[in-house]
Amino acid sequence: MLEYKLIKKSSKCNARRGEITTAHGKIQTPIFMPVGTAATVKTMLPKELEEIGAQIILSNTYHLYLRPGHELIKKAGGLHKFMNWNKPILTDSGGFQVFSLNNLNKITDEGVNFSSHIDGSKHFFNPEKSMEIQMALGSDIAMAFDECAPYGADYNYTVSALNRTTKWAKQCKEYHHHDYQALFGIVQGGMQKDLRKRSAEEIIELDFPGYAIGGLSVGEPADLMLELQEFTAPLLPENKPRYVMGVGTPNYLIEGVRAGVDMFDCVLPTRLGRNGGVLSHNGYFSIRKAQYFDDFTPLDHECDCYVCKNFSRSYIRHLIKSNEISGFRLITWHNLYFLISLMEKIRKSIEDDEFETFATRFLAKYYAQSV
Amino acid sequence: MLEYKLIKKSSKCNARRGEITTAHGKIQTPIFMPVGTAATVKTMLPKELEEIGAQIILSNTYHLYLRPGHELIKKAGGLHKFMNWNKPILTDSGGFQVFSLNNLNKITDEGVNFSSHIDGSKHFFNPEKSMEIQMALGSDIAMAFDECAPYGADYNYTVSALNRTTKWAKQCKEYHHHDYQALFGIVQGGMQKDLRKRSAEEIIELDFPGYAIGGLSVGEPADLMLELQEFTAPLLPENKPRYVMGVGTPNYLIEGVRAGVDMFDCVLPTRLGRNGGVLSHNGYFSIRKAQYFDDFTPLDHECDCYVCKNFSRSYIRHLIKSNEISGFRLITWHNLYFLISLMEKIRKSIEDDEFETFATRFLAKYYAQSV
Repeated sequence: MLEYKLIKKSSKCNARRGEITTAHGKIQTPIFMPVGTAATVKTMLPKELEEIGAQIILSNTYHLYLRPGHELIKKAGGLHKFMNWNKPILTDSGGFQVFSLNNLNKITDEGVNFSSHIDGSKHFFNPEKSMEIQMALGSDIAMAFDECAPYGADYNYTVSALNRTTKWAKQCKEYHHHDYQALFGIVQGGMQKDLRKRSAEEIIELDFPGYAIGGLSVGEPADLMLELQEFTAPLLPENKPRYVMGVGTPNYLIEGVRAGVDMFDCVLPTRLGRNGGVLSHNGYFSIRKAQYFDDFTPLDHECDCYVCKNFSRSYIRHLIKSNEISGFRLITWHNLYFLISLMEKIRKSIEDDEFETFATRFLAKYYAQSV
Repeated sequence: MLEYKLIKKSSKCNARRGEITTAHGKIQTPIFMPVGTAATVKTMLPKELEEIGAQIILSNTYHLYLRPGHELIKKAGGLHKFMNWNKPILTDSGGFQVFSLNNLNKITDEGVNFSSHIDGSKHFFNPEKSMEIQMALGSDIAMAFDECAPYGADYNYTVSALNRTTKWAKQCKEYHHHDYQALFGIVQGGMQKDLRKRSAEEIIELDFPGYAIGGLSVGEPADLMLELQEFTAPLLPENKPRYVMGVGTPNYLIEGVRAGVDMFDCVLPTRLGRNGGVLSHNGYFSIRKAQYFDDFTPLDHECDCYVCKNFSRSYIRHLIKSNEISGFRLITWHNLYFLISLMEKIRKSIEDDEFETFATRFLAKYYAQSV
């Protein structure tokens, strides 16, 4: 089950305020989804995700299949119960990880042979297997098994990946059956607009309850990524949610919303957090820099999160330099809050039809990198 | 400032229920102090320490001196403010770490030359330096700079370490001056009862507001440790707090309380937590074992902590096997809660003069290792 309700559209761009209803509750869109690869959003516990306002998280099919195994999670009563998260979960198809984490994979129209990045053991994924795993996990939103052609792939290869993506999407749809889980289709087509258009048409033809734009943010220049996002999003039906996969820098999120995208996910805030990278209203900075040694101000002067209200840059820098888990926790917490509260402000601005003003002001400050 | 109030004594052993008043609040004893080596109790945030009932934490002078430096912490307004912990803090003298983390140290009556375990840089600690650092940190309880002779040291060496400990304790007392910080003396004397007695007499002669028993749990057999603890604790004044340093297994805590000890600290619950080691009412076990793969019950069936109420052994095992920080967090949380709530039960049992019954029952179950 999945319903999308369009609440309000911007009068100046494609930005839209919506609401998605899933089996585990409603999601207010546009939304940023924290990534919980191995059934945990790294360093964060479920109650903390709730505290910072996370409405839905993403988990990775590839990782959970390999460890601890989808059968165990099914036995536990599904992923929600296993990890003690009672709000919506989206699972990816496993395809992207199979391609990006395994350089020995072998792709045919039948599926993909690959080796585990954990122990080198041999495995095979195809559309049916991806559906089987995602149904066992019991996520609210499953993704169709697709092929994301690598950045730099030539036109012919991009066409063949597109064709496989359409073929596999049909197989996924035929095989997929679940009480409440909704299955989204994925648009591919590489860096070519004609192929993006063709892929969108073929996937929409299959009538999924939601659509994702895959294959972006895979190494291409920022301008090209933004151009393709802007081009592709409006090709998707207005009465269904639109999701751009793997995108999560603040500026990309704002541009995505402007293009009409409703859902985003990215490992950026969590991965940066473990390396001392801070997202702020004044741009990105590394807390490791010597200048923060005796800086007793908060990470972000405009942020009202728990971390910014209670800890200084000096203290957090000390923790990161000392390789202390508490340091990884504090920055991850702030970064996630930063993106989640950014989306909340974006939603409010769309409701008030002030999105363009908000976006312009935010980006001007963000790009100024005054920190 | 520091006051000790004896509230109740067991009618059957030396166990005692007391209250220590410090500048940052009162501490109910007997108490277990979580260790926050680098100005953080590993994986835990201050609000979580409060949530599990921690009343006081210990932090390490040696580590904070090397990184980020006591001058920075002084500039931040002291350790409490730097790390956002508003309850009492005890700092050790740095001596134990200088001896145990540096095999190139050189000890004379004047002090200890040592190399940093971080970057190999050369440093010198003496009683005055230890006092200077601890005063800058602004802990509620500082410890005198002592020499802990290594386990296996011969009689003559143990005597010379004892003599230095007394000499240095005098120097610490003369040099120490702080608005609110109390300075505790430390009893050494190795594994020899006559030397323990002599050290206790010499240190008590100097009249500190509290006394620690150092040099235990340094590699000696458990029986010897318990015998020396039982022998030494009653030598200390009844109207001052007694603290056994570096001891934290549940059975040692109970035996220590029985001997009349009020305060304990140990890295055990936090260190075990990061390795998958779980403390429970049925003894210690490693969550890594295959038998917990599909065990959907809590870590400890008798525990009512947040972790045991919300997560299964199966899930926590998965996190630990995946090297996920959330896994380290969950076990650390439980282990600390386990020891802190054990001490709470001990305090209650002393109030009711039921300590011996409680201790016997707890130990019988704990030693049965039925998990």
